[in-house]
Amino acid sequence: MTKGPTGPKGGAGPFFEDFDLGQRIRCPTPRRLGEGEAAAYIALTGDRTPRYSGAAGLVHPLVVFHTVMGQTVRPVSLNARANLGYAGMRWGGPVRLGSVLSTEVEVLGLKENSNRATGIVWVRTTGRDQDGREVLSYVRWVMVRKRGEAPTRWLEAPSVPSVPGPVKARELCLGGLDPLPDLQATGGRHAFEDYAPGERVFHLDGQTVNASDHMAFTRLFQNSARLHFDAVLTHGDPLVYGGYPISLGYAQAFNGFENRLGLAAVNGGAHANPVHAGDTLYSFSEVVEADPLGDAPVGALRVHLYVLKGVEPSTVPALAVRAADGKGYREEVVLDLDLWELVAKRG
Amino acid sequence: MTKGPTGPKGGAGPFFEDFDLGQRIRCPTPRRLGEGEAAAYIALTGDRTPRYSGAAGLVHPLVVFHTVMGQTVRPVSLNARANLGYAGMRWGGPVRLGSVLSTEVEVLGLKENSNRATGIVWVRTTGRDQDGREVLSYVRWVMVRKRGEAPTRWLEAPSVPSVPGPVKARELCLGGLDPLPDLQATGGRHAFEDYAPGERVFHLDGQTVNASDHMAFTRLFQNSARLHFDAVLTHGDPLVYGGYPISLGYAQAFNGFENRLGLAAVNGGAHANPVHAGDTLYSFSEVVEADPLGDAPVGALRVHLYVLKGVEPSTVPALAVRAADGKGYREEVVLDLDLWELVAKRG
Amino acid sequence: MTKGPTGPKGGAGPFFEDFDLGQRIRCPTPRRLGEGEAAAYIALTGDRTPRYSGAAGLVHPLVVFHTVMGQTVRPVSLNARANLGYAGMRWGGPVRLGSVLSTEVEVLGLKENSNRATGIVWVRTTGRDQDGREVLSYVRWVMVRKRGEAPTRWLEAPSVPSVPGPVKARELCLGGLDPLPDLQATGGRHAFEDYAPGERVFHLDGQTVNASDHMAFTRLFQNSARLHFDAVLTHGDPLVYGGYPISLGYAQAFNGFENRLGLAAVNGGAHANPVHAGDTLYSFSEVVEADPLGDAPVGALRVHLYVLKGVEPSTVPALAVRAADGKGYREEVVLDLDLWELVAKRG
Repeated sequence: MTKGPTGPKGGAGPFFEDFDLGQRIRCPTPRRLGEGEAAAYIALTGDRTPRYSGAAGLVHPLVVFHTVMGQTVRPVSLNARANLGYAGMRWGGPVRLGSVLSTEVEVLGLKENSNRATGIVWVRTTGRDQDGREVLSYVRWVMVRKRGEAPTRWLEAPSVPSVPGPVKARELCLGGLDPLPDLQATGGRHAFEDYAPGERVFHLDGQTVNASDHMAFTRLFQNSARLHFDAVLTHGDPLVYGGYPISLGYAQAFNGFENRLGLAAVNGGAHANPVHAGDTLYSFSEVVEADPLGDAPVGALRVHLYVLKGVEPSTVPALAVRAADGKGYREEVVLDLDLWELVAKRG
Repeated sequence: MTKGPTGPKGGAGPFFEDFDLGQRIRCPTPRRLGEGEAAAYIALTGDRTPRYSGAAGLVHPLVVFHTVMGQTVRPVSLNARANLGYAGMRWGGPVRLGSVLSTEVEVLGLKENSNRATGIVWVRTTGRDQDGREVLSYVRWVMVRKRGEAPTRWLEAPSVPSVPGPVKARELCLGGLDPLPDLQATGGRHAFEDYAPGERVFHLDGQTVNASDHMAFTRLFQNSARLHFDAVLTHGDPLVYGGYPISLGYAQAFNGFENRLGLAAVNGGAHANPVHAGDTLYSFSEVVEADPLGDAPVGALRVHLYVLKGVEPSTVPALAVRAADGKGYREEVVLDLDLWELVAKRG
Repeated sequence: MTKGPTGPKGGAGPFFEDFDLGQRIRCPTPRRLGEGEAAAYIALTGDRTPRYSGAAGLVHPLVVFHTVMGQTVRPVSLNARANLGYAGMRWGGPVRLGSVLSTEVEVLGLKENSNRATGIVWVRTTGRDQDGREVLSYVRWVMVRKRGEAPTRWLEAPSVPSVPGPVKARELCLGGLDPLPDLQATGGRHAFEDYAPGERVFHLDGQTVNASDHMAFTRLFQNSARLHFDAVLTHGDPLVYGGYPISLGYAQAFNGFENRLGLAAVNGGAHANPVHAGDTLYSFSEVVEADPLGDAPVGALRVHLYVLKGVEPSTVPALAVRAADGKGYREEVVLDLDLWELVAKRG
């Protein structure tokens, strides 16, 4: 007998047919983020952002992100065929070490694909701390496998939501910024005023991805998507969780953004090409917009963070991230993350 | 000169001749288990058990087990040829993060083997916290190398103790169960009442074992048995510590046992076949007995947790864990762990 | 545009021309060392020193060392061609978990090499906790690349400082030793009185170095030197950070020095040959001097800790660490660390 009285257990995860418009799902498992997660994050990424290394006692914004994202894997994306995009991602301010995060998703849109094998699910994801305070919110859309061939009502009558546009600088959370980085202590002489739109910042460090590192990183956030861990399933080459190049690139970007305070928003992100163990990742940033935020002690920089594999971008004059035919990214680009960073002003 | 005034140091570990009946040994090194160990455990196994991920502040029962087991390696099993079995393993209730565990072993039985090269040592292992409270106790028997060829008195007159039978459901520790898992928050709809003897639960997730992961796991628990770490000694293929597949299988078993509270007892365990880096592990559970424990808010399930290498068990109809000739396990089975799990009732 | 208004960012690190005599540099990034770092250190090294595993709540002396060393990489040695030596390294007593360490360097000497491509920089490195208390201090000298070919004044008029000689036993910090190791609980029967100059202690354990382990170790300490991480830059074989064999050897040396209290000083150290992933490391210690420190409850042992690759030193009778021609070390020796260790006395 392989079934219990209430049917088989060991869930194969949600299929497209399991979602409904307006549905709200509490995601397992509430997670406490403490000193252990902070140290493991540094060991797995090399992140050196002063605000998340020293006395402030804060959880790194990307630890918040990966935790929330990991909590949505089981109820949303265990059977995802593709992670199509994010939008409108905003952090709700500092999270103290020791906080316990829980995540809820709400289904915003559904569209069955014409192949009848998959559909697209749009969800609003909201992470909260133990006091119910919102720590992260974003819209994400993923392509999810269908359980069967019978068409759903979302084939003929899809419900496609409007996706948030770029976050505006004035919408960024500026609470809890104290203490600001000490421009003498961070090792970087560049303040907000020193950055200009159009500027490229090369981060120079390369990091070769090891199988253990990317898997430990993904497990740290209790993300259980199978294709990251199973060499049999993936014909010998597990796919690196897309969040790992985000964190490696962000860690590398300390070199050039030493006085950053941590991510405030992500306007969108493209996982342009897959990463596997053995790839060596490099990154650079392109400043798109600089907003002084009035009299605030920090300014906001809108930046594209590009992560590439196998190519050190500072060695390629006028490197183009787009493919020669203008369609999509060149094959070395693995990530294009359109983000808002807060950077301390000179004073 | 390679010896000090009191003889050579750098102990080669105990040999069969070093044990005596009734001998009690305090094991090095008292170990504090805190947030760091909790995070490292999750990063190395992917465990998602809600009780050990969130606000409760408890040490995972398997972290207790591996710590206690690791503490016995140096005084008992550094020269073990084989880990023959465990029995009567019971946890003594929740262990709070920050506890300091110490372990004592008592020699229960001794039998020299007829080959005069090895002998069997039975020990009662008891782990305690800083207040002397028992947190784990079990009987284990191991085959240990002899130092020399001269026979011991345990060749002619072995002392073979009676090994505990299966733990009875009413012997399980039910203290400190609050708060119970919230059946809405765990991501699993199955309560104790939904499990039935004979049922197989497939956990579906596969995990390829990396060299770094199994060694870091074993070092985390200060287990220094050489064959897990030394590629020269092992002709290029260090043996994975048998505790790692226990933890990986238990982590995988969250999928199907989402409302579990953590191991309460182990009746016995067989490390049926060795695991090496590169193996991909899968698991399933077979429910053997379900005891409602009277009016308790949890029930007890006796379960065999099977871990296999290279075979996803849900894809094999009527999979037999025994070898075709009925003698021992089939070669893909690496672990058969006979355990008691407490699971929250519906209400 | 690849430059901002104040020039390019993403620093390529200091070159020889960037240093000046008497210059003081505050190193980024102040780092909090807590339970997470303690657990990660044990997982990555297998260290079992009782004082840093149990209830005492102290940071391992080598965690202090690697943190301070890592903080100096960006301002001093990112472009180092070779790590030439350390001297006069003393720890300032116990560091409590939760301390925040900051590091300052002072340039003591400068000498341009006759090849005009590199120069030697001598620095005094001082690590302090959040109260300004000195936790570690040492002199280090490194060969650093020049930015250009134009000679500096340090070619014609080098300033070569006198380097400290061996630390004297009476200079060792003896504060905060309580509680002393319990000679019954550590698993080692050897007290200070049992060691004698000339004695060799074989530590027996071998550890094969994995790519993930050495990189995670190096990242844990926010050491960003590129050649440890980038397989493209290093033609497929990243160089293991020299601190990793220090920590692995020290962890192995628990077997034979069970009643040690942790490093008190390092007189000098030679990274005799490089280590790469795949190497298996073994170690032994040679006692050079034993100082009872008067009536102190501990004595001081001056010890050379030798780490070798591919050779288990206990299997080689009268193993010589020097090469056959007497010049330098034999090729299997990767580390010769001349240190002072405090060891509990018998009573």
